[in-house]
Amino acid sequence: MTVTRADVARAADRIGGYVLRTPVIEVEPGRWLKLECLQHAGSFKVRGAFNRLLGATPPAAGVLAASGGNHGLAVAFAARRLGVRAEIFVPEVCAPVKIAGLRALGAEVVIGGAIYQEALEASGKRAAETGAVEIHAYDQLDVAAGQGTVAPELLEQVGQVDTVVVAVGGGGLVAGIVAGLDGRAQVVAVEPERIPTLHRALAAGGPVRVEVSGVGADALGASMLGRIAYETVAGRVTSVLVSDDAIVEARHALWHDHRIAVEHAGAAALAALRAGAYTPAPGERVAVIVCGSNTDPATLAVTRR
Amino acid sequence: MTVTRADVARAADRIGGYVLRTPVIEVEPGRWLKLECLQHAGSFKVRGAFNRLLGATPPAAGVLAASGGNHGLAVAFAARRLGVRAEIFVPEVCAPVKIAGLRALGAEVVIGGAIYQEALEASGKRAAETGAVEIHAYDQLDVAAGQGTVAPELLEQVGQVDTVVVAVGGGGLVAGIVAGLDGRAQVVAVEPERIPTLHRALAAGGPVRVEVSGVGADALGASMLGRIAYETVAGRVTSVLVSDDAIVEARHALWHDHRIAVEHAGAAALAALRAGAYTPAPGERVAVIVCGSNTDPATLAVTRR
Repeated sequence: MTVTRADVARAADRIGGYVLRTPVIEVEPGRWLKLECLQHAGSFKVRGAFNRLLGATPPAAGVLAASGGNHGLAVAFAARRLGVRAEIFVPEVCAPVKIAGLRALGAEVVIGGAIYQEALEASGKRAAETGAVEIHAYDQLDVAAGQGTVAPELLEQVGQVDTVVVAVGGGGLVAGIVAGLDGRAQVVAVEPERIPTLHRALAAGGPVRVEVSGVGADALGASMLGRIAYETVAGRVTSVLVSDDAIVEARHALWHDHRIAVEHAGAAALAALRAGAYTPAPGERVAVIVCGSNTDPATLAVTRR
Repeated sequence: MTVTRADVARAADRIGGYVLRTPVIEVEPGRWLKLECLQHAGSFKVRGAFNRLLGATPPAAGVLAASGGNHGLAVAFAARRLGVRAEIFVPEVCAPVKIAGLRALGAEVVIGGAIYQEALEASGKRAAETGAVEIHAYDQLDVAAGQGTVAPELLEQVGQVDTVVVAVGGGGLVAGIVAGLDGRAQVVAVEPERIPTLHRALAAGGPVRVEVSGVGADALGASMLGRIAYETVAGRVTSVLVSDDAIVEARHALWHDHRIAVEHAGAAALAALRAGAYTPAPGERVAVIVCGSNTDPATLAVTRR
């Protein structure tokens, strides 16, 4: 199953009144940052959550999600907005700031295991018991199509670009963007070296399980690429890896140079440019998706730099 | 001497290639935030600095400014960009993060007294000795006209608005905005209760010296409204005051609700709406200028909320 440009266009129509049209800033000639970090609930994930929720008819048990944090926040945000009950399963590595945020949005939070995969299994079991609608963090068509609405929005804002650089966890965002762009720009897919789900999947000819560690783990911590993502993006992206050090450096640069506060995962795409994992040609028009800001700003403190 | 719409239009032409066209986000229907906090050097001040520098021919002694911080950062940024030497006089209340930022931009930093007024006097003395071009933080026509370029840019981005809400320190920004709007929208001028330079000036029929204290002191700490600001805005603005508690609350809300990290002064305008110092009519289209982000993000830490 693959996401298509038509799926993304439908999603854009459906969620238009519920998500922010996030700003784009041109930080140097031909270099843009798309600030999904300013999106409702602090990341692009709310696009997929609204698209899935608006396409379903949740029972009294409501909706249910497993999430390293951002997807959970997005589902909780969308559920509250639409008056639906939400139950969110998170792994133990989930940042405390994200758990507090989930509760503040009225969601029930369940610690569902050591890593994302275990939380996902616990949530699946629970869904079978209660009949709640599951919203997967990435491997559902409506979710990936919703995330992809970033792509047509970006093109409307910037006009033609050559390259879109985007971070990859489970692959919902990159799949949606590849579908939404539909060849109108190439896609550079960036992963932490320590969570190379897409990189390994492309090498292996299909999703394979990887070890999850490093600074990106709380938001890019899926241990395997989604099937929909694999089928949608294989052969259609350039896959690159960045070190944790490069991600940390890019995150501080976003604050220091542009006063944009993001979580580590939100800086991974920019890190690929700053660290040279991807080097644009002269004159190449490049847009970087800055995808999430659910961070404790104390970790950006000047004194720690 | 007053700033005019033509002054602002000329400034916009002059500085266009040097400053960011900062994004606007619509946070609810008819309510916009203009994110000058994402401007180069972290505040709108770089608009005035570039307009003054591009209009002058600095001698070898370069340029010189006295500043509670943001203006100094802006002058240092603009001077570096244009290859001019910069010497910045700051008061002791200047936040350490701002002094570090000045030095990182290559400026010489001189602690010029306890408060802004003393730093200003020290810098004036120094300018007389060296012949450096002085760039005043607010009371120069080119500076105020540069700050005012926020206004036409906002109208281009949002279309017609009824009201622009803006914080006031020495009055450069509010004067420029009143001039730039030239009656196309009303202006609500917001000051901390503990630094009411405009409020007192309007009551007294001219600028008068006020006590400076509270959370806004490091960025809104001018002890007297500028003469140009007074002459430009008297009779053309609604002046309101907000408590320090309201400013602190608005600053946390900007982070919590929108992931926008600002200094206290940058949240003062929004505080006027949140605390009810100014209540828009139903359907009134209101734009809030979020004006500065030179803050240590540690002070936004979740645990302190």
